[in-house]
Amino acid sequence: MASDKKVEQITSMEDDFAQWYTDVCTKAELIDYSGVKGLFILRPYGYAIWENIQAYLDQKFKQTGHENVSMPMLIPESLLQREKDHVKGFAPECAWVTMGGEEQLPERLCVRPTSETLFCEHWSHVLHSWRDLPMKYNQWCSVLRWEKTTRPFLRGREFLWQEGHTLHATEAEAREETLRMLEVYADCCESFLAMPVIRGNKTDKEKFAGAVNTYTIECMMHDHKALQSGTSHYFGDGFTRAFGITFADQNNQLTYPHQTSWGLSTRIIGGLIMTHGDNSGLVLPPHVAPIQVIVLPIAQHKPGVAEAAQNIIDRLQTAGIRAKGDFSDNGPGWKFAQYEMKGVPLRIEIGPKDLEKGQFVAVRRDNGEKSFLPLENLEKSVPELLETVQQALFDKARQNLETHTYTASTMEEVREKAQNGFVKTMWCGDSACEEKMKEAAGVSSRCIPFQQEKLGDVCPCCGRPASKTILWGIAY
Amino acid sequence: MASDKKVEQITSMEDDFAQWYTDVCTKAELIDYSGVKGLFILRPYGYAIWENIQAYLDQKFKQTGHENVSMPMLIPESLLQREKDHVKGFAPECAWVTMGGEEQLPERLCVRPTSETLFCEHWSHVLHSWRDLPMKYNQWCSVLRWEKTTRPFLRGREFLWQEGHTLHATEAEAREETLRMLEVYADCCESFLAMPVIRGNKTDKEKFAGAVNTYTIECMMHDHKALQSGTSHYFGDGFTRAFGITFADQNNQLTYPHQTSWGLSTRIIGGLIMTHGDNSGLVLPPHVAPIQVIVLPIAQHKPGVAEAAQNIIDRLQTAGIRAKGDFSDNGPGWKFAQYEMKGVPLRIEIGPKDLEKGQFVAVRRDNGEKSFLPLENLEKSVPELLETVQQALFDKARQNLETHTYTASTMEEVREKAQNGFVKTMWCGDSACEEKMKEAAGVSSRCIPFQQEKLGDVCPCCGRPASKTILWGIAY
Repeated sequence: MASDKKVEQITSMEDDFAQWYTDVCTKAELIDYSGVKGLFILRPYGYAIWENIQAYLDQKFKQTGHENVSMPMLIPESLLQREKDHVKGFAPECAWVTMGGEEQLPERLCVRPTSETLFCEHWSHVLHSWRDLPMKYNQWCSVLRWEKTTRPFLRGREFLWQEGHTLHATEAEAREETLRMLEVYADCCESFLAMPVIRGNKTDKEKFAGAVNTYTIECMMHDHKALQSGTSHYFGDGFTRAFGITFADQNNQLTYPHQTSWGLSTRIIGGLIMTHGDNSGLVLPPHVAPIQVIVLPIAQHKPGVAEAAQNIIDRLQTAGIRAKGDFSDNGPGWKFAQYEMKGVPLRIEIGPKDLEKGQFVAVRRDNGEKSFLPLENLEKSVPELLETVQQALFDKARQNLETHTYTASTMEEVREKAQNGFVKTMWCGDSACEEKMKEAAGVSSRCIPFQQEKLGDVCPCCGRPASKTILWGIAY
Repeated sequence: MASDKKVEQITSMEDDFAQWYTDVCTKAELIDYSGVKGLFILRPYGYAIWENIQAYLDQKFKQTGHENVSMPMLIPESLLQREKDHVKGFAPECAWVTMGGEEQLPERLCVRPTSETLFCEHWSHVLHSWRDLPMKYNQWCSVLRWEKTTRPFLRGREFLWQEGHTLHATEAEAREETLRMLEVYADCCESFLAMPVIRGNKTDKEKFAGAVNTYTIECMMHDHKALQSGTSHYFGDGFTRAFGITFADQNNQLTYPHQTSWGLSTRIIGGLIMTHGDNSGLVLPPHVAPIQVIVLPIAQHKPGVAEAAQNIIDRLQTAGIRAKGDFSDNGPGWKFAQYEMKGVPLRIEIGPKDLEKGQFVAVRRDNGEKSFLPLENLEKSVPELLETVQQALFDKARQNLETHTYTASTMEEVREKAQNGFVKTMWCGDSACEEKMKEAAGVSSRCIPFQQEKLGDVCPCCGRPASKTILWGIAY
C-alpha cells in the first residue's frame, strides 16, 4: 500500500511570525514539548544541527588551546553567593534541589544556571604558580534558568550550551582572550551559519552579572528584531578575589589572576530559523545542514532509476558531502514539501529521461532555481552549487541587516524606525538615558558597536554631549 | 629559574588498593573534588579519556543506525511513577527540584537518574505507523543518583553516560538490538580499552528496574573484584503499555512496540584505572590514550635537540598519532615520573648522542622496555610499538581474568575462592539461593554467562537440580 501522508501546512510568516516560528520548530521535527514548561526535547534533526555547530566550535576551541572539562551540575547556595553581583543576577531564576532520596538536604543546591562559581572553586584548588597559567577550559552541558515565558530555542528553562572559562596572569592577556573568543563566535555565525553580525560592547545595564565588560555579537532576524547570539565576558579579578584564587608570579609574589568566560547556546538555532526560514519552512545554510543534498528518484520503479539515485548518493558521500536518499513509497509531492520543510539546501532529482540524457536535476532550496547538470561532473558541480547557496544566504541576510539599520537623532525617531529594524544614535553613556529610551521607544540597547560613527554631538535622550554611537533594537 | 617541582608519590596498590586508586585519580589529574559529596570534576586529562570513548562509541552508534537526541534533565514525579517496577527501583535515589526561582513548584521534579520515562512520553507523541519504526535514539548527558557512598568514577551522585533507547515493531527485532548493542560495548572494552569481558544475562534480582532481561559485560579488576561495565536491557512492551504507546501495523491494527535501552558511563574510566594501572600510576591503552607518545628532549639546550624533538612530534602528528612534547624547564626525573603517572603508553627521548647516531629512544609504559630505533623509520616503528603495547595490555588483563576465575561446588568453596577472583558454580535459578550465597559467601551474582559449561548437577545453595552456570564475584 502506498503511503497517504499529507503535506503539513504552516502559518505564513506575514500572517503571524511567532506562529510561523513555532510551526517550523515542530513541523521540521526539530523539537517536541515535554511535560515541563520550558524544557524542550531536541529531536534527531534538531540535535544534528547542534552537533554540527558543536563540531565546528569544538575544533576552533581546541585550535586556540582550550581543553574540555566537566563540572558538577549542582552549586551549593553558599558557593553561588560568594560573588555578590553574580548571585544577584542569577538567584531569582535558579531551580533548587532540596531533597536527595528521602532526605531533606542540609543546604539547598542550585542546578547550574552558569558555572563561574564552580570553575572558581576548582581553580582555588589547582592553581599554584605562573607556570600553571593560562588555564583555558570549556564545557559542553545543559543549564537551567527558571524563566517566566519560554519559547523553543529562544528562551528555555533548560538549554544546551558551551561555556568557556579561562584564567590569565595579566589583564592584557585576559582581554585579548575575551576578544579572540568573540571573534570565534562571529566567524561561526558569518562563515558557518551565514548570519552577519554586529560586534560590540554591552552597556553596564546589559552586561553579565559580575563582569567588567561583556562583548556581544548581535544578529538581525527576518522580522528585523535582534538576537543576542553569543557573548564573551572579561571579569578582571573580581571573582578571583572573592574566591581567594592566587598564584605565585615570576617574582614569587602572590597575585590574583584575571578571568574570562564566554558562551554560545542552542538559542543560535532559533536565530538560524528566523534568519533564513521562509513560508515553506526551514532553510539551512549548507555548512551546517545535517543533510546537504536529498536525492529523490523519480519513477523509481523504472529500470535503472533507483540504482542511479543510489550511485549519486554514494559518489557524493565519497566526495565528503552529507547526501541522503528517500526511496520510500511516499509520493513526490510529499517528498518535495518534506525536504523543503526541513530546509535541505539542495534537492537532486533523477528520472528515466535524465538517465537517457546523462544528467540530473538540481533544485536550490533558497530560491527554487533549477539546473540540469551532467552526471559526470557531479563531484564538481554539487559542491560549487552548495557554496553558491551558502554565499547567497549570507548576502540576503546582510542585505536585510543593512537596509533595516537606521540612524536617528530623537527618541521619537527611534521609536518609529525600531518597528522596522535597528537604530543607531549617539549616547551620553548614562544608564538613566537607556532606561528612558526603553520606556519611550520600547527598545533595549544591543551594543556599543566596535565600529563607531559620528552621527551628531548630543544624546537624543538628555540633550547632553555624547561621543559614543549605540545600537538600539527590539530584542528576542 | 628552573622549576623545583616534586615528583608526587602514591600509595602502593599492595598496601592499600583503595587509596592507590584514589591517589591515581587525583595525582594523574583525572578528577578534583567539588563542594558537593559525590559530584566530581573531570579535569582536562580525565575528560579527554571520556571524549575518546565518546568518539569511539558515537561512531559505532551512528554506523548501527542510531540518532542522537536531547531529552530534558527533569522528570515530573507523576511521569516517573507511570511504570511501577521502574519507580520502585529509582525513586529512593532521586534528587528533587522543589523550587523554581522564589516559587514552590506545584509538582516536584526529579533530576533524571535515567530517561526511559522521558523517551516513552516523547514516543507517545510521535509514533504513529509501522513506517516510523524502528526509532533508534541515543543521548549523551549526565544523570544524578543520590547514592550513600561515593568514589571517583565508580560511584558518583552525578555521572556522565550515554543512554540508548529504541523502539521496534517486534520482540525479535528488539531482542536482536539488545544483543547488538551489548556486542558494541564488548568490542569497545576489548579492542579499544584492552579490557577482556564476560558477557551474560543478569539474574532477575540484579536486572534493571522495569526490564524483562538485562545483559551485561563484566570485567575483572587488578584486585580480582568485578566491575559491571555496560548493560543492555530488553523491556518487552511493559513501558509501552504503561505509557499507551501504539502504532498502526501493516494491517492497520494498533500494536504495542517493543523497547530496549543500554548505557555505558564514566564508570568505565574507573575500570581502565583498576585494570591496567600500577604503582607508578595510570597505564593507558594506546587506543584510548589522550597522549599516545610523549616526546622528551634530553639536554635540550644542546644544538639541534629541541628542533629534533619538535620534528619527531610533527612527523608523528602527521602520521595521525597523538604525540606531544614537553619542553618545560622541569627536570628529566620529574618529566619521566609525570608521564608515567599519567599513563602515556610510549615515551620517546632524544638527546645529542641519539642525534649523532640518527636514532631515538622509545620506552614502553607497560613494562619499561627500552628500544633504540632509527629515526628514519619513525612513522612505521612507533605505530607498531603502540599496537604491541595495546595487545600486551589486553593479554595481561586476560591472563589475570583467566587465572583468577575458579569453579566451585559448595558455598564454602565460593566464599574462599571469591576472595581471590570470580567463581563459577551451577545454579538452580531461585533468587532465594542468590540471597543465601550473598549472606554465606559475600558475593553477588555477576551474570549467567552466555558461554555455559556443565560443572555438575546440583545447586550449591539448596542441593536441588541445577542446569545453569552462574558467575559470582565481589563487585564494585
